[in-house]
Amino acid sequence: MNYLKKVVVVVFCIYFPALAAAQTHPNIMLTKQNIDAVRAGLEKYPLLQDSYKDVLKVADQALASPIQVPVPKDGGGGLTHEQHKVNYQNILACGIAFQLSKEKKYANYVRDILLNYAGQYEKWPYHPKSNPSNPPGKIFWQNLNDCVWQVHVIQGYDLVYDALSSKDKQTIEKHLFLPILKFITVDSYKTFNRIHNHGTWAVAAVGLTGYVLNKPEYVEMALNGSDKKGKSGFLAQINELFSPDGYYTEGFYYQRYAILPFILFAKAIQQYQPQLKIYQYRNGLLQKAVNTALQGTYSNGAFFPINDALKDKTFESEELVYGVDIAYADMGEDKGLLSIAQKQKKVIVSDAGLKVAMDIEAHKATAFTYIPQWIGDGKTGTDGGIGILRNGQDQNQQCLVLKATSQGLGHGHFDRLNILYYDNGAEVFSDYGAARFINIETKGGGGYLPENTTWAKQTIAHNTLVVDQTSAFKANLEEAETHHPDLVTFKNSGAIQVVSAKENNAYPGVQMTRSTALIQVPELKKSLLLDVYKAESVALHQYDLPFWYNGHIVDASFKIQGVTDHLTTLGTKYGYEHLWLNSENDLKTGQGYITILEAHNFYTTTFASTTDLQVKLVSLGANDPEMNLKESKAFILSQPKAANQTFVSITENHGSTDPIAEVISGANSSISAITIIHSDAKQTTITFKIKSKSYTVKINYLDKDNFISIQ
Amino acid sequence: MNYLKKVVVVVFCIYFPALAAAQTHPNIMLTKQNIDAVRAGLEKYPLLQDSYKDVLKVADQALASPIQVPVPKDGGGGLTHEQHKVNYQNILACGIAFQLSKEKKYANYVRDILLNYAGQYEKWPYHPKSNPSNPPGKIFWQNLNDCVWQVHVIQGYDLVYDALSSKDKQTIEKHLFLPILKFITVDSYKTFNRIHNHGTWAVAAVGLTGYVLNKPEYVEMALNGSDKKGKSGFLAQINELFSPDGYYTEGFYYQRYAILPFILFAKAIQQYQPQLKIYQYRNGLLQKAVNTALQGTYSNGAFFPINDALKDKTFESEELVYGVDIAYADMGEDKGLLSIAQKQKKVIVSDAGLKVAMDIEAHKATAFTYIPQWIGDGKTGTDGGIGILRNGQDQNQQCLVLKATSQGLGHGHFDRLNILYYDNGAEVFSDYGAARFINIETKGGGGYLPENTTWAKQTIAHNTLVVDQTSAFKANLEEAETHHPDLVTFKNSGAIQVVSAKENNAYPGVQMTRSTALIQVPELKKSLLLDVYKAESVALHQYDLPFWYNGHIVDASFKIQGVTDHLTTLGTKYGYEHLWLNSENDLKTGQGYITILEAHNFYTTTFASTTDLQVKLVSLGANDPEMNLKESKAFILSQPKAANQTFVSITENHGSTDPIAEVISGANSSISAITIIHSDAKQTTITFKIKSKSYTVKINYLDKDNFISIQ
Repeated sequence: MNYLKKVVVVVFCIYFPALAAAQTHPNIMLTKQNIDAVRAGLEKYPLLQDSYKDVLKVADQALASPIQVPVPKDGGGGLTHEQHKVNYQNILACGIAFQLSKEKKYANYVRDILLNYAGQYEKWPYHPKSNPSNPPGKIFWQNLNDCVWQVHVIQGYDLVYDALSSKDKQTIEKHLFLPILKFITVDSYKTFNRIHNHGTWAVAAVGLTGYVLNKPEYVEMALNGSDKKGKSGFLAQINELFSPDGYYTEGFYYQRYAILPFILFAKAIQQYQPQLKIYQYRNGLLQKAVNTALQGTYSNGAFFPINDALKDKTFESEELVYGVDIAYADMGEDKGLLSIAQKQKKVIVSDAGLKVAMDIEAHKATAFTYIPQWIGDGKTGTDGGIGILRNGQDQNQQCLVLKATSQGLGHGHFDRLNILYYDNGAEVFSDYGAARFINIETKGGGGYLPENTTWAKQTIAHNTLVVDQTSAFKANLEEAETHHPDLVTFKNSGAIQVVSAKENNAYPGVQMTRSTALIQVPELKKSLLLDVYKAESVALHQYDLPFWYNGHIVDASFKIQGVTDHLTTLGTKYGYEHLWLNSENDLKTGQGYITILEAHNFYTTTFASTTDLQVKLVSLGANDPEMNLKESKAFILSQPKAANQTFVSITENHGSTDPIAEVISGANSSISAITIIHSDAKQTTITFKIKSKSYTVKINYLDKDNFISIQ
Repeated sequence: MNYLKKVVVVVFCIYFPALAAAQTHPNIMLTKQNIDAVRAGLEKYPLLQDSYKDVLKVADQALASPIQVPVPKDGGGGLTHEQHKVNYQNILACGIAFQLSKEKKYANYVRDILLNYAGQYEKWPYHPKSNPSNPPGKIFWQNLNDCVWQVHVIQGYDLVYDALSSKDKQTIEKHLFLPILKFITVDSYKTFNRIHNHGTWAVAAVGLTGYVLNKPEYVEMALNGSDKKGKSGFLAQINELFSPDGYYTEGFYYQRYAILPFILFAKAIQQYQPQLKIYQYRNGLLQKAVNTALQGTYSNGAFFPINDALKDKTFESEELVYGVDIAYADMGEDKGLLSIAQKQKKVIVSDAGLKVAMDIEAHKATAFTYIPQWIGDGKTGTDGGIGILRNGQDQNQQCLVLKATSQGLGHGHFDRLNILYYDNGAEVFSDYGAARFINIETKGGGGYLPENTTWAKQTIAHNTLVVDQTSAFKANLEEAETHHPDLVTFKNSGAIQVVSAKENNAYPGVQMTRSTALIQVPELKKSLLLDVYKAESVALHQYDLPFWYNGHIVDASFKIQGVTDHLTTLGTKYGYEHLWLNSENDLKTGQGYITILEAHNFYTTTFASTTDLQVKLVSLGANDPEMNLKESKAFILSQPKAANQTFVSITENHGSTDPIAEVISGANSSISAITIIHSDAKQTTITFKIKSKSYTVKINYLDKDNFISIQ
């Protein structure tokens, strides 16, 4: 008896890789052939078990509440908006719960709520809160959310399909899903055929629905566009929206968002039409996209917040759980992904989730490896890109990001050659991200705030050069989209990691090259961050190079004289109108340092300029009548008038404080005597001292094989 | 063989409670009779083992470095300062390492460095960086640090005593310890006889040294003062500095600091003179002091930052490790202390640490219980005190602190009837603490900054009423020390916890009573914070009631009109000169609300006034030329001119955001229609609604048995 039970369990646990299946249900994330194995896995693999408990909690809560399908009325964050969101989550959760518990009550819930929707949907007009900024939905204020709704709901339907009567299925399909298909493909034709993340959700919704309802017509439109010619649709989107390195042109925050429909629809394609070899499409692009999304995080899991981005977002987000699970289970079992899944603390309750949870339990997980790299942007990978330098894998990782991508569509910021710098688990030089309180209705309806345009997108909001107090491309999107920066070089020799890129179009007549490096020297434990920003011009310009920092300035080479009893703004436009000028210091020598205590660590930025310079301390918050902006502070290295200008800085983490023991170590920087010996189109040469030892760094702009030397 | 080994181990592990001992060494934290048990315990109790590893690391690092005993030169945080600090830590660590490892090299280190000190100490004059603000030391800039040094070093000496030659001991005692005893008792006579934490360190240093060197004369002076009459010395300090509830008059930050010499010297007294029954002294005062220090923390372990306090300080600090270990091992085995020790993640490698680690391993730990309570201040417990209301034990604990203590000596702030409010692991209404970057030399030598006086101590820096833009007692310390607030009532009925106190001397002619309550209502999961602040006066005054908050305002009942392009200060003195006025709003109805998003939680403060009022939004940072002040923000409820004035507010945590899933719940408060029906010397009556249900709260100032009612 016991023996038999054991055998049965073992048999139950066999996991079948994704395979073609005829019109069976369910057949997307959770497939008929693996249901028994997943059910058995619930008992054996804690991660799967915990994840299922979360699903069950949602499902049971759904059953305990009356079904509510309100007539759509409210915008993002509002009551009807949130209710319809809850409904699609409930439908999916109940579908999964039905398959795994075999309890009919869950299927009945899905049936009842879908019949309710089917009884109303056709009567609903365009959503009353829709506005010209985005194509309208019917259930939600924008079309996008309707598509997201359908992507979830159709999975729930697939999961309970076999439990529904023919009559109910007919009603639901005729009065809900077919009208939705029409709404997306016909009424929202433009979005459906658009190469954009909204388009991805639209084709995924239509494609998944086409498979589940066995309507190949719709699947083909989803794959190849309304005209089935391949200029739009899913495959075109894979072609156009990603670079060969798997970078999504809007940046990592939106890459994360876009990954879900890409990966989910791909999984369905693989189930229904394995002959399309979608996972291998474009040299395994989708697997790369998942991996590149993960490489687009700091070691604490947070996505690099370039372009419009909410900064709390990490790889724990649901979309990456899908991405990691499918990438692992179906695309090659990269063991490093298992450690990410461990940090995500959940899996999708699905075939892929079973595989992940099973292999974690079998101790197959290895550490995810962060790799210093250049990630090319654009269809051919040559429209600039992102340079990532890293030292260390864990919490104390040093990480430098040089953003030299193309504009990144409407969510792009005017921040050519911007840098982000992380160390010891925190942001050292940070990016504001987007000006938005997502889903908080009282803050601009939860959408992007006016200050996203007037502040967050402007050049001065970033750690990059501003010429003549004006944003790159004068903040003109169309103009910015016609140009991209170019990679000069990326090299990782171990002791020196360097990336250099140039931008010659942001400001007419000004050639800008930024070269940043993480350099290990024998005297110091941590690498030094070297940053060389060179601007060349015939005409005279004002050059401002801000460093946005967290923490508090605790030392400087000059006496800070803070403005005492009144504050005025630094300028009147391009974001300068949002800055309070707190102090202004002339440094005749063109050299100096600033020490910041940030998250219990000391960072000193020692800087030099080819000419004398000013240091301006600024804080954010002016011209913000509704107080939408968050506290932010910067020091700006500023050169009021020069033709050619080079700023050099070395940032060192030289010590820390222990506030509980009340002890400090290494309060003073080891760097001194920084001097620019020479800087022109060919070469920049600088000298400095580490303690008493002199060093010379040469950057050879024209010699990629010997780009940087230090001795 | 195995059996024998087991028996031996068992015998080794017997732990002897503290007992009298003749002149044996060591005999303070680690005693001769328990050495074998502690050594055996290292193998068995992970917490003891880990703690010993930390000690060994310090000891081995000491041995690996050349001995450095520099001539004292630098102030706090400077090189010689830090070196002498490291030296005393090394001496103690090597003493412990010697006893437990039996390796002579550790004893040799202690011998060599002490001989080095003995060769120099007598030549050192008063420290060159000493200044009139504090009595001078010889090794450090202030006497206090010399005493701290000696408290540690004499323990190290005791630990290696038996390993030293008579000649070396004679040299060390004659040329180092006896001169130090003279320095503390004679040259620093005033400090030694002062009732103050500096005095406690002085008597502990002298008393411990007296015991170890077998000089009863010094022990008696330490216990009863230089004249041995008991007006000063250790026992007088226990009498004077603590209230019967175990509250130390300077506040919790300094209570933590003072606890180490109290508890350590008490342990030595218990070892050498158990007949004094020091642990039972004043009804077991020292045990209460440890417990009250722990009750003076929020559930995240951070001490309530009243008076001068550094805000990162938690019960993980070394002083509380001593306190918890000795309180547990020697004063009654309160099992809740074991869970604190677990959070401290270490024990003192000592008899007491063995007992703690052993009992944790035996699963004896129970959760530490935070208890809502009134803690009296002053020798008789009647000089005001602190009210602590709590709901919940863990991370989501709600905790309200009403500070109604006496002034608390020179570190006291002018913040009568100040409140602090915590919830969900974070500060909701916060206190600036002290203006100080401890040990950071570049920031005012690491000491208290000028802004500690001009800002941090002033009334407006706190969540309490400011009358006529002037601090309580016009910020005059002497005046403030002659008056204390009084408890009106403290009650905990379960559903309602309430504390009320009054202050009639801070502002001439103004009687102030503040009553705060945590109230559980059936409609809501979390308790409501009710705050009723009543001021009565014959003359007209301006009344400002600030709420210092973290986070970001996301909603308000009125349209916030932020100052756009220039900022000015709110006033010119008493801390007002440090405030930028960001917006000013007249509320004719005298009612309104402000919603703050803080650490992903929504808090709405719904308020009402007996008259119309203004709401001012302010931020800190004006008149701060060296930029010493940290970002802080407040909303101020302000009444420009009134005689009697009552402010009522209800603060509700009604929802939260999940930034990773990008969902929010409960963005809107359930509270509305707040109205003050009536407020006078006898009673305040207010009404409000929770959702659609009306409530009436009555506060009966003259009826303590029926102080608050809600229906």
